[in-house]
Amino acid sequence: MIKTIKHIGLAVEDLDAASDFFRKHFQVSVSEREYFGELAFAFIPVEQMSLELLQSTSDDGQIAKFIQKKGQGVHHIAFEVDDIQAELDRLKAEGLKLINEKPYLNAHEDLVAFIHPKSTYGVLIELIQTRTGG
Amino acid sequence: MIKTIKHIGLAVEDLDAASDFFRKHFQVSVSEREYFGELAFAFIPVEQMSLELLQSTSDDGQIAKFIQKKGQGVHHIAFEVDDIQAELDRLKAEGLKLINEKPYLNAHEDLVAFIHPKSTYGVLIELIQTRTGG
Repeated sequence: MIKTIKHIGLAVEDLDAASDFFRKHFQVSVSEREYFGELAFAFIPVEQMSLELLQSTSDDGQIAKFIQKKGQGVHHIAFEVDDIQAELDRLKAEGLKLINEKPYLNAHEDLVAFIHPKSTYGVLIELIQTRTGG
Repeated sequence: MIKTIKHIGLAVEDLDAASDFFRKHFQVSVSEREYFGELAFAFIPVEQMSLELLQSTSDDGQIAKFIQKKGQGVHHIAFEVDDIQAELDRLKAEGLKLINEKPYLNAHEDLVAFIHPKSTYGVLIELIQTRTGG
């Protein structure tokens, strides 16, 4: 059960340039750059949700590989759920291909896991269970 | 200035199958199928925004061509604005490549126009000015 759409992740080659672009042309605020593994990222809050800009800090990181293959653009959509492990177990039982059978903690210490886009009409879906539930 | 993110459009080959998929696996409701030109589409309301499923009813429609080239997946993101013509004029003056320099009425009689993804980090952005403003 989807509670809400938490963010849309955009793969970009240059996080600073992309941040400036969205600030300048769409008059949005962009959060401070953060790091997680080989990722650098920042959020653009838009009402209840965010755009997330994602840049790889490594040439063979997942975002770098995505851009090499598909170019810059939408990388994933994050659905917020209440009980991520229960959702993962159910979706697996229903035949969906999971990238992560167990959730892991992201940079914000929220529990996250990904569903393979082959299972979901080409959309990489992230499930996210926030620490605060909101 | 982005008021909100109105929807995320997903290109799919079979609207009924995709609707059933999201209903079944994510326990969402899907609106009645609608038509506009060579498009069949339906909305999945999620809190303040929607997922929009888009299928081409013609082999050479824009969604059919998108799927032939890139496969199924995220097709566009819609930003709601107050004054679409003013936004288009400003973005054009700022050097962005517009697909539509003048907005047109969509199936819901909202004014819409698209910005070329080459200008916007690979994301096809739709601007939308709703009839009701909400």
